[in-house]
Amino acid sequence: MNGAESLVKTLLGNGVEVCFANPGTSEMHFVAALDRVGEMRCVLVLFEGVAAGAADGYARMSGRPAATLLHLGPGLGNALSALHNAKKARSPVLNIIGDHATHHLQFNAPLTSDIAGMAGTVSHWVRTAADAGTVAADAACAIAEAGRKPGRVASLILPADCAWGEVASPFPTSEPPSSPPPPSTFAPAPSSQVDAAAKILRRRGRTLLLLGGGALFRRPLANAARIAAATGADVLTEIFNSRMERGAGIFSPERIPYPVDQALAALAPYRRIILAGAAPPVAFFAYPGKPGVLSPPGCSLHHLATPEQDCAQALEDLAAALGASGVKVKAGAPAMPTVTDGALTRDNIGACIARCIPDRAIVVDESQTTGFNFLSQTRAARPHDWLRNRGGSIGAGLPLATGAAIACPGRKVLALESDGSGMYTPQSLWTQARENLDVTTVIFANHEYALLRAELGNVGAPNPGRRAVDMLSLERPRIAWPALARGMGVDGCAVEGVKSLHRALAHGLSTDGPYLIEAVL
Amino acid sequence: MNGAESLVKTLLGNGVEVCFANPGTSEMHFVAALDRVGEMRCVLVLFEGVAAGAADGYARMSGRPAATLLHLGPGLGNALSALHNAKKARSPVLNIIGDHATHHLQFNAPLTSDIAGMAGTVSHWVRTAADAGTVAADAACAIAEAGRKPGRVASLILPADCAWGEVASPFPTSEPPSSPPPPSTFAPAPSSQVDAAAKILRRRGRTLLLLGGGALFRRPLANAARIAAATGADVLTEIFNSRMERGAGIFSPERIPYPVDQALAALAPYRRIILAGAAPPVAFFAYPGKPGVLSPPGCSLHHLATPEQDCAQALEDLAAALGASGVKVKAGAPAMPTVTDGALTRDNIGACIARCIPDRAIVVDESQTTGFNFLSQTRAARPHDWLRNRGGSIGAGLPLATGAAIACPGRKVLALESDGSGMYTPQSLWTQARENLDVTTVIFANHEYALLRAELGNVGAPNPGRRAVDMLSLERPRIAWPALARGMGVDGCAVEGVKSLHRALAHGLSTDGPYLIEAVL
Repeated sequence: MNGAESLVKTLLGNGVEVCFANPGTSEMHFVAALDRVGEMRCVLVLFEGVAAGAADGYARMSGRPAATLLHLGPGLGNALSALHNAKKARSPVLNIIGDHATHHLQFNAPLTSDIAGMAGTVSHWVRTAADAGTVAADAACAIAEAGRKPGRVASLILPADCAWGEVASPFPTSEPPSSPPPPSTFAPAPSSQVDAAAKILRRRGRTLLLLGGGALFRRPLANAARIAAATGADVLTEIFNSRMERGAGIFSPERIPYPVDQALAALAPYRRIILAGAAPPVAFFAYPGKPGVLSPPGCSLHHLATPEQDCAQALEDLAAALGASGVKVKAGAPAMPTVTDGALTRDNIGACIARCIPDRAIVVDESQTTGFNFLSQTRAARPHDWLRNRGGSIGAGLPLATGAAIACPGRKVLALESDGSGMYTPQSLWTQARENLDVTTVIFANHEYALLRAELGNVGAPNPGRRAVDMLSLERPRIAWPALARGMGVDGCAVEGVKSLHRALAHGLSTDGPYLIEAVL
Repeated sequence: MNGAESLVKTLLGNGVEVCFANPGTSEMHFVAALDRVGEMRCVLVLFEGVAAGAADGYARMSGRPAATLLHLGPGLGNALSALHNAKKARSPVLNIIGDHATHHLQFNAPLTSDIAGMAGTVSHWVRTAADAGTVAADAACAIAEAGRKPGRVASLILPADCAWGEVASPFPTSEPPSSPPPPSTFAPAPSSQVDAAAKILRRRGRTLLLLGGGALFRRPLANAARIAAATGADVLTEIFNSRMERGAGIFSPERIPYPVDQALAALAPYRRIILAGAAPPVAFFAYPGKPGVLSPPGCSLHHLATPEQDCAQALEDLAAALGASGVKVKAGAPAMPTVTDGALTRDNIGACIARCIPDRAIVVDESQTTGFNFLSQTRAARPHDWLRNRGGSIGAGLPLATGAAIACPGRKVLALESDGSGMYTPQSLWTQARENLDVTTVIFANHEYALLRAELGNVGAPNPGRRAVDMLSLERPRIAWPALARGMGVDGCAVEGVKSLHRALAHGLSTDGPYLIEAVL
């Protein structure tokens, strides 16, 4: 057995069953090992940003790491932006990065680079394998590191000679572990944090319960609703969530708005904020003359549970401490929004989507300005999961959707994507076609970086001139998304009215395989 | 004047007149400054890998750095692979990387990352601006660093507050410099190196003159031909060149072959190798049981001029020392290859391209396996420049062609690209359409990573199984390149015979603006 085979065996033995791959020469032994070991689902991508983004989406929906297979420093470089997002989302991801054979590095061949340095910028853990015989142990360690809750990016650099070298001793215990090890669990939140939160909630004055991470599932959301009902506290979620259970029958709080002025206004009333799986709220960017901290001066912040702690249990304990466990929350079921006329307005689009979301769908939302109100508009939709970009590096939507579909073959995936963001990782569509994934993508084509138009004013550069505006325009030429999709084997259409959008969504979501809709705005 | 305006003025004042940009919120002041300062040619790209690759192509053809404008760590991450190639090509490139305002970094907002760490892996020089008042000086320093011969990657990180902050004192000398500073020049090769090379060439035994970098222009190539004629030495070039002048009337030596066995065989006869602008030849990858050094055991290596030294002058001096300056080289004009039949074979494709290359064209070649013989086949073509990927990170072709076209508006650009490589940076086509660049792209669609099929055997994994082969196949689905191009505003066609290829090339190269040809293999 060689090092690459021991690696694939270790991955499978520890529950890593999917690999998003874009291999090169230095990874050929890993590729060859796929036939000798079997069972690994290896998904080919045409660009490494798709591999890492798909691994992120897979992890969010399965709770387990997928592997990426990347070609030396440049392959890792192409994945860096997506790994940044995965790291910020606290998704478990395991990178296998090929490198030159150890004895070849001295020659400074063209593909030689500082892989460990590069990996360090987006990883919680980095190791370079030193010998074929220890690759299995390195991989087991990497998998354990990736799985540490809430999730980590672990990068294992695999020199080619460690892949092709023979493993002297038999595989760790002659047989790979027969079942995956128990998943790493969250550390419990100390009871002192629960007691302190209960004390705060019993006081007068407006208090906000800010939810993030592990609090955004059905059960902890229900406890948050009970706590709010019992104490009068308000509930919000962070600006961007990694994964949130939502829809009819699930408590769906509003989020902190993205535009900085709206965010400041939303938090202005609060003197105390209790954080459950959320980080202290800060502005996405700095703006001249505006604060970076979104909570108002004098507002105190209290951790009920940090993102690393079990905030679902902490919310359950807090509800109990407040005597709220049995509180019946008046559902106040949100209404399904209505379509007002035929135009593709933001309101109509949101209403149309709310009506079309299939039961147990996975919605990946990188719709930028078009979708500012999608979360509010879809609260009455059928139950679903909602995934957003936590790291702010655009181009996340199509890869996340690809990985989510691999993780959940029985569920429909709806990707809501802006045209500017979608053009970062269009290669995702090819992998969706190749794997016949049930992903329906809607591209909101407003033919500009609309968010930046607004941000010009926010950063103190209003009234931009012709040259500045030209840098934000995607009009020249307009991108023809159905042609682009067809080029990569995905069928699609363009729609200009809400009825056509509805029809196209119904078609895409009811048929097998990928489909793309360009909503021309 | 704010920091961003002082930056744009400094760029223009120092001869940096083109910026390949994909800006975000943190770069909005730079964008706004474009209108207030004027004159900067700012080229919008949809993906940062295109920005950096285009800056590389621009630098190779103009000899001067362009700027890239990148959005924090993730924007830099997307550019990393192309910057790796630019660094290996020794192209002067100046990165302007936006960052959060200095006072915002403490909040660990979603887009916060270790930009300097990331930039360090692909840059010769990195600095983070500390204050709006010193941005101009930082930029002047970065431009000088980028311009140090043969060329460097310089990265200036620009926190948002340094861009929007007012510059207290007037701009360095109240007026920006009226003309660019003299370009940095190559250090001369010490005469001892020239003398030693002359001595070696006067001895018996087979000697190789290996050319790279600055030796690959008409005049030094002519001197290399004279030296070879006078001494009986052979001449080769490195495996991959950054830029080479070639075609009828120009001495066009063969290159060291890429496949490792062929490369070892090509160098086996030599007991002495004289390096002129070339690095000691090493294998692109390590292969089990094969040497990493390509020169045979006992072969001695001598630097006539390192890549950092003036090898054009050194070759002139060497020819003089050998009394070869007046040698008339029998032209032995290479013959134009002939098309044998109608099929799209490698030979026919090469012959067709040789006949179609326009006078003074720029050929960008990332054709991988299809183009293994293109250099041999095109020696009789009209005079042209030939650019290849020096860093080995694939996806370089379309961005290089984009930047070369911006640098040389009067010249035709022919991009020879493989399908696998082309899918890394297809967004280049959109910028070519937007700028109406005279780039004709030929995609050699063999529907697989054909190079890797060969490499499986070379690394000792022959007879790959079904799953391994599947990881190298682009058959499922086939990419429809004309549709993809049309989606981004570029007209194109698919051809299946050499006559259609010839017709399509003639059409693309004779009309204005970009055109794409899929050669279906």
